[in-house]
Amino acid sequence: MGTAALHPDRLLPADPGTRKIARELYAAVQDLPIISPHGHVPPEWLAQDTPFKDPTSLLLSPDHYIFRMLHAAGVPLAELGVGGAELDEAGARRAWAHLCEHWHLFLGTPVRYWLEDELVGIFGFTQTLSPQTADASYDRIAEVIAGENFRPRALMEQFDISVLATTDDPCDDLAHHAALAADDTFDRRVLPTFRPDKYLEPGRPDFADLVARLGEVSGEDTGSYAGYVAALENRRRYFAEHGAVSSDHSHADVVTLALEESEAARIYAGALAGTATQDESTALRRHMLVEMARMATEDGLVMTLHPGSYRNHHEPTLEAHGPDTGHDIPIQMEFTRGLQHLLSRFGTADGFKLILFTLDETVFSREIAPLAGFYPSVYAGAPWWFLDAPEAIGRYRSAVTDTIGFYRTSGFIDDTRAFCSIPARHDMSRRLDSGFLARLVADHRLREEDAHQIAIDLVTTIPSAAFNL
Amino acid sequence: MGTAALHPDRLLPADPGTRKIARELYAAVQDLPIISPHGHVPPEWLAQDTPFKDPTSLLLSPDHYIFRMLHAAGVPLAELGVGGAELDEAGARRAWAHLCEHWHLFLGTPVRYWLEDELVGIFGFTQTLSPQTADASYDRIAEVIAGENFRPRALMEQFDISVLATTDDPCDDLAHHAALAADDTFDRRVLPTFRPDKYLEPGRPDFADLVARLGEVSGEDTGSYAGYVAALENRRRYFAEHGAVSSDHSHADVVTLALEESEAARIYAGALAGTATQDESTALRRHMLVEMARMATEDGLVMTLHPGSYRNHHEPTLEAHGPDTGHDIPIQMEFTRGLQHLLSRFGTADGFKLILFTLDETVFSREIAPLAGFYPSVYAGAPWWFLDAPEAIGRYRSAVTDTIGFYRTSGFIDDTRAFCSIPARHDMSRRLDSGFLARLVADHRLREEDAHQIAIDLVTTIPSAAFNL
Amino acid sequence: MGTAALHPDRLLPADPGTRKIARELYAAVQDLPIISPHGHVPPEWLAQDTPFKDPTSLLLSPDHYIFRMLHAAGVPLAELGVGGAELDEAGARRAWAHLCEHWHLFLGTPVRYWLEDELVGIFGFTQTLSPQTADASYDRIAEVIAGENFRPRALMEQFDISVLATTDDPCDDLAHHAALAADDTFDRRVLPTFRPDKYLEPGRPDFADLVARLGEVSGEDTGSYAGYVAALENRRRYFAEHGAVSSDHSHADVVTLALEESEAARIYAGALAGTATQDESTALRRHMLVEMARMATEDGLVMTLHPGSYRNHHEPTLEAHGPDTGHDIPIQMEFTRGLQHLLSRFGTADGFKLILFTLDETVFSREIAPLAGFYPSVYAGAPWWFLDAPEAIGRYRSAVTDTIGFYRTSGFIDDTRAFCSIPARHDMSRRLDSGFLARLVADHRLREEDAHQIAIDLVTTIPSAAFNL
Repeated sequence: MGTAALHPDRLLPADPGTRKIARELYAAVQDLPIISPHGHVPPEWLAQDTPFKDPTSLLLSPDHYIFRMLHAAGVPLAELGVGGAELDEAGARRAWAHLCEHWHLFLGTPVRYWLEDELVGIFGFTQTLSPQTADASYDRIAEVIAGENFRPRALMEQFDISVLATTDDPCDDLAHHAALAADDTFDRRVLPTFRPDKYLEPGRPDFADLVARLGEVSGEDTGSYAGYVAALENRRRYFAEHGAVSSDHSHADVVTLALEESEAARIYAGALAGTATQDESTALRRHMLVEMARMATEDGLVMTLHPGSYRNHHEPTLEAHGPDTGHDIPIQMEFTRGLQHLLSRFGTADGFKLILFTLDETVFSREIAPLAGFYPSVYAGAPWWFLDAPEAIGRYRSAVTDTIGFYRTSGFIDDTRAFCSIPARHDMSRRLDSGFLARLVADHRLREEDAHQIAIDLVTTIPSAAFNL
Repeated sequence: MGTAALHPDRLLPADPGTRKIARELYAAVQDLPIISPHGHVPPEWLAQDTPFKDPTSLLLSPDHYIFRMLHAAGVPLAELGVGGAELDEAGARRAWAHLCEHWHLFLGTPVRYWLEDELVGIFGFTQTLSPQTADASYDRIAEVIAGENFRPRALMEQFDISVLATTDDPCDDLAHHAALAADDTFDRRVLPTFRPDKYLEPGRPDFADLVARLGEVSGEDTGSYAGYVAALENRRRYFAEHGAVSSDHSHADVVTLALEESEAARIYAGALAGTATQDESTALRRHMLVEMARMATEDGLVMTLHPGSYRNHHEPTLEAHGPDTGHDIPIQMEFTRGLQHLLSRFGTADGFKLILFTLDETVFSREIAPLAGFYPSVYAGAPWWFLDAPEAIGRYRSAVTDTIGFYRTSGFIDDTRAFCSIPARHDMSRRLDSGFLARLVADHRLREEDAHQIAIDLVTTIPSAAFNL
Repeated sequence: MGTAALHPDRLLPADPGTRKIARELYAAVQDLPIISPHGHVPPEWLAQDTPFKDPTSLLLSPDHYIFRMLHAAGVPLAELGVGGAELDEAGARRAWAHLCEHWHLFLGTPVRYWLEDELVGIFGFTQTLSPQTADASYDRIAEVIAGENFRPRALMEQFDISVLATTDDPCDDLAHHAALAADDTFDRRVLPTFRPDKYLEPGRPDFADLVARLGEVSGEDTGSYAGYVAALENRRRYFAEHGAVSSDHSHADVVTLALEESEAARIYAGALAGTATQDESTALRRHMLVEMARMATEDGLVMTLHPGSYRNHHEPTLEAHGPDTGHDIPIQMEFTRGLQHLLSRFGTADGFKLILFTLDETVFSREIAPLAGFYPSVYAGAPWWFLDAPEAIGRYRSAVTDTIGFYRTSGFIDDTRAFCSIPARHDMSRRLDSGFLARLVADHRLREEDAHQIAIDLVTTIPSAAFNL
């Protein structure tokens, strides 16, 4: 237990001269609106302006960074409301107590940093979490979230989020987005993102069902390859018409290849019939990634790739709790060879944009920055998942800046479902970028006025340019 | 040549404010007893309390970090007492002179840092080594080690090593360990470690002989696969009964797979008959690693993995001097896919612990920390071999802390046969961890009292928990 | 737009105590002559002492770091004089305007750092480049390069480059080098480098033509494998007689293997006949790399390897502008297994030297430093291509110093065709090394007098030793 307070200089460099510069840079960006072009907040929260249920379902259960560490400490996922399980009041309170009990495990991690930022900044805490104050802290948060000014829309206003992109299924009717756009009382942008992964995996056992549904919503006959392509084009357009600016892709790798149309059609038919081999399915998936790029040159959706996760590593947990329950583990990734085909075709196409994210930080200096420094279409995506943290963000800037400076990067993305953590995450990024820029100023690699301009651009024009906002 | 002295602030961060914090953290841990849960000190040194022979066989010949660099400088290994070769007095003196002659090659390396720490701290040197003082320095050390208070047990007392684990062959009778345990005049813990690598490599030409020997000492019939498994279980129990807390494993990779029992038995028979293919032998080795995990869930030995070394890279040196003569070179490693099978089976098993070491630092942030942040069994092992050095240790803390903080790491291991370097190595680690923690305090990511507690835990409860001490 | 000035402390560490040490170290090396043992300056520039044509062909068109970033910004390569295209005066001026227009893209990159160093230090600029001053800056540079004291020889004198190695085709007659060596009025060393890559790639469609030409210039019958080997030996000797100290090699990988002579001869015949398979061609290329090492043990040329570039990634650009036009992208590399065969044979051979460069920085700590710390022949090459930049150079020193200190490294190489950037690049390296050494002094890992000696050795004895100068 101890006092909690947010130091105004947190995350700024320790050297006094450098810190002074960083403070000034940070002051210039601290209060600028938040642009969140990629994340996982459910759009219905905003459309329906639903009150949050309880501290655990707001702060703990949706945050895989939190529940995976508690699992590592021996807490069963079932007691944490993970995987869609509903906890009653007693269960939610017990889950919260687990977090308080194991709060020391998070010392030094961004998870603790963000949550303390929220607890102090949003909920007015003056003490850190501890086993002794588990109930009191739960009650305090419950009281705050019951308030009228703690509804999602009020928070979006309070957090000053100007753009918030959600992540959506291609078959989604985007009714929530449409309602928000039509609502004159709500002037923030909430944009859908086209996330077609499962519809591009012909090897899935449910592929035929998936594309049948795609046929229904698009009105195209997905019984043929041509209809499947048309259906995807149709849904992308639908998304674009509803404000989407990007499509988001995560497969086992980013290998791309172009099949002859007839070969693609042949494999597609096999996939529907359940006779396609694994190699054929993989080939078709790689071909479809190139197709996505082609469609992007037509409908203008920015393409974001974030490959490299071994999904559902622990089989018993998958069986008990479903996917996205904390055991997606990064693997090594390769972009140079993998993307060669796609980029030879569309790398210099007018208006095409491709943002490369990675879970494998070895590619930042070796592959992503060199690609982004040649292809007009390619941007180096901000550190993502496991890497959206102070030390990793520092390594990212160190790795890419030598080769591409700042203007070929994407700007920060929070990639989160933890709505209340959005300000803390963006604030962290602004502090760290201020610190990095200050370091370049302190050793006279950058003039202070240039650093000032870059700091502002990093949260305004740079994400706007990368995501066509 | 120059004066040698140990600066009290060595290895602490240069920024004055951060150094001040680091000093206080270090002061709290500087004198705590040393826990050494993995290393290579021969147990007979302590059991027999043998006096050390000469400076070269004490400090140079057993230290691959030293002799490999001298070899790179053109000194023949034969002149350095490497690979078990005995040097006479003149030879030992000449070897020492080689080191003095090439001492500048080690500038900036931890090897020089450790040895200077020993020379000043233990042997009372006031001058650094140099060609001019080769003989005098040799004589000085020889004089000190001849003293009664320079016997291994006295040193273990003086160094305040509370636990020292050795590394032992599964067929070893552990008589030295038993003698030490039975000796009422000796109250330090010296623990064996079960190191079965060669008995788990069915592709070795001497595999049949090895398992025959395993059969003898265990009383099991290793002519069959079932007997082989029983013999390994038997020897693990024997080690556990003699105080062992861990088994240690180093193969070419960490790929794991589970064969059907009948298939394992078939390959085992083929391996004994010399007819198993290389693929079969590899499959059985990978299967046996899973078996080791299964046994661990029964006998409680912590499993430590440190793969990724290309052994005996230079064939002529292997032929002339045998293995472990300085030319084991790291290779790239993969843990996520490799361990999937083992962890799906035993990753959440009660009491099972698996500590992952690596020679390939790219896996720290990408694979090891994410695994240790989900699986209750997995700990991120401290930087090991080539990476147990100031810069690499800094990179390690930077790489893993974002994801798993401090409490899912193993604590420092020295992994050394160079007995006199143990205090210097642990002291280095404490200084570096103090510096890293101070950095987090200085930029307000950690409160000073939390850093203080972590610094202490890192050398007490953290290694004790990871190694079941 | 803003003022441009070169701060005397640029690139030195920000911490005042550390900076003070760094300043003193830098002062000791700042004015020492430049040794440039690997680069791409055309020897005819010096032999003919040709005046430079215009600012664009001097500073922009030959610098892939500059034109690739402009391409990423959407500027067509054709407008930048890339790939040998000649620009007229208006075109050159427009190309320069493109650079001025996009100068902010380079903020924080070494490209901007170097060019500003040149603009201020050589051309006397007091303002940074900007769209407003495009014409004025072009005129200013044009005026300076028209001056008599801006000829290549005068610059080599002014830059104080004592040794400059060029990169040359094995069939080159080295007439320019001979002329320079014979010229009593010119006392700087300009050395050729043997770069046989394309003659060692039996899979190239033009292989038969290439070796035919090799036969012509060597007088050997390259119709047979024995004649091919003799021709290579012949040309290496010719280069050595003309002052060459090294051969330089860049293939897709560094895998080495030794074929039986008869097998090599068989594949060679097939390659000439156009019937060799891709696997056979690859095998012969890998075999020839071992042959190069064998020849090196005889003729004394240092062997430098820099593999790991995926050449000509963007096919349309290759077709339109040829190779070396900014889209060679790094790929992952492997040295430990790849070089095992070569090093088992020649790793300890008298006088053999092998310098390992890499585009994949993950191998610095994992493979290159461990190899250089055992094999007397192996040196860790300085950061190269994409990595010859402040942040990457810092990571390199951090990665290799723990294992091999400073004396098993190669010293800096500039690897550039941008003649005027040579002083800025070497100065950058000296500043960064001074800073790194100062850091070791500041945390008491190194005594200041030792750091001083190392700083001097890094630009004198260390490159001289590595490159047999």
